[in-house]
Amino acid sequence: MSAKIKIEKKVLSENDKIAAEIRERLHQNDIVSLNFVSSPGSGKTSLLEKTIARLGKEIDIGLIAGDVQTENDANRLKAAGGEIVRPVVTGGLCHLDARMISKALENLDLEDIKMLFIENVGNLVCPSSYDLGEDMKVVLVSVTEGDDKPLKYPAMFRRSSVMIINKTDLLPHCDFNMETARMNALKVNGKLKIFEMSCRAGDGLDEWYLWLKSLMTR
Amino acid sequence: MSAKIKIEKKVLSENDKIAAEIRERLHQNDIVSLNFVSSPGSGKTSLLEKTIARLGKEIDIGLIAGDVQTENDANRLKAAGGEIVRPVVTGGLCHLDARMISKALENLDLEDIKMLFIENVGNLVCPSSYDLGEDMKVVLVSVTEGDDKPLKYPAMFRRSSVMIINKTDLLPHCDFNMETARMNALKVNGKLKIFEMSCRAGDGLDEWYLWLKSLMTR
Repeated sequence: MSAKIKIEKKVLSENDKIAAEIRERLHQNDIVSLNFVSSPGSGKTSLLEKTIARLGKEIDIGLIAGDVQTENDANRLKAAGGEIVRPVVTGGLCHLDARMISKALENLDLEDIKMLFIENVGNLVCPSSYDLGEDMKVVLVSVTEGDDKPLKYPAMFRRSSVMIINKTDLLPHCDFNMETARMNALKVNGKLKIFEMSCRAGDGLDEWYLWLKSLMTR
Repeated sequence: MSAKIKIEKKVLSENDKIAAEIRERLHQNDIVSLNFVSSPGSGKTSLLEKTIARLGKEIDIGLIAGDVQTENDANRLKAAGGEIVRPVVTGGLCHLDARMISKALENLDLEDIKMLFIENVGNLVCPSSYDLGEDMKVVLVSVTEGDDKPLKYPAMFRRSSVMIINKTDLLPHCDFNMETARMNALKVNGKLKIFEMSCRAGDGLDEWYLWLKSLMTR
């Protein structure tokens, strides 16, 4: 085994240990947590903006917004009404890891929130390897990216519980087959719960909100 | 310095050494080489398909098509008329590295080609750190990804020589400001050469082809 692979295995196993601690803390506080992952520009921040604006009064939502170099996403989420928003700048690193989340949680009173959204770095590869202690990963794809993405980047879809197919308002202008996309995704992970939506046009959002609310009563 | 950072520095310096060897070999054979990078689904493969179909008879083009798990892109490029196509499957790794390119070149007679296109893994973060021995990186963004991408993922735009703004046919349906995108890109890298195009509609491709041909006569 090369030195590089050995170090990577060690890093991942340390990460998993911290993630397990985070998961336990969140569960002790009855907090439901979702880790949002996707390519850059698939609409993670837009979805979270809409979700906060709609559900922020009903559910106490905490947000951890990860970004490579800027705090732009965190600022957008605050402007959308997010009251508890913690930016995490990875300093060039291509993913969030459990240590960053653990540090962000130090500045967050867990009694104040019932739901935690983590917005990961825009990257369909690397964040799949890092457990952040979340209850589930939500992977977004936009219809402009093509219906083959689950086959080409299978790890992320295998490790996610939910897939959101976003920007459905652009379907008439793209070569994207919804049935093919669903089939490709389910081939990789038969348990995926799939939502179709257009954050921009507002289509499909009600079903998403209802589902999020149902998580709170489990 | 942590063990992980030390190992990463060593990996990168080994990579740079191999990349320098590749660059020398390509130059000795008068081969112009471009490394195409972008998020998943920005249109790298589509652009290469069109480019092969249009220029393949005039220029001897070699293609190295990188992918995380499949050979789908390589197969598309062959179907589009690519005669010399070498797939590289990274086995889950989030980027191509110089060693992979060096290995792919073993199966390629350099006297047969005048231009080498390398299609990197779809990832706007990690491939920026890996020199593959190419003459220049070409970064694609599609208008659906938003005009803020150069600011949010600056390393890739800083290390690229060319930026292609793709899917301009979708401009009427997106909140994308072309001037803002150009300004953001030039803020990060004032030397970027910028093309606007729609691979799907065919807009802007002629300028791209002319520019590629001009590289051959330098």
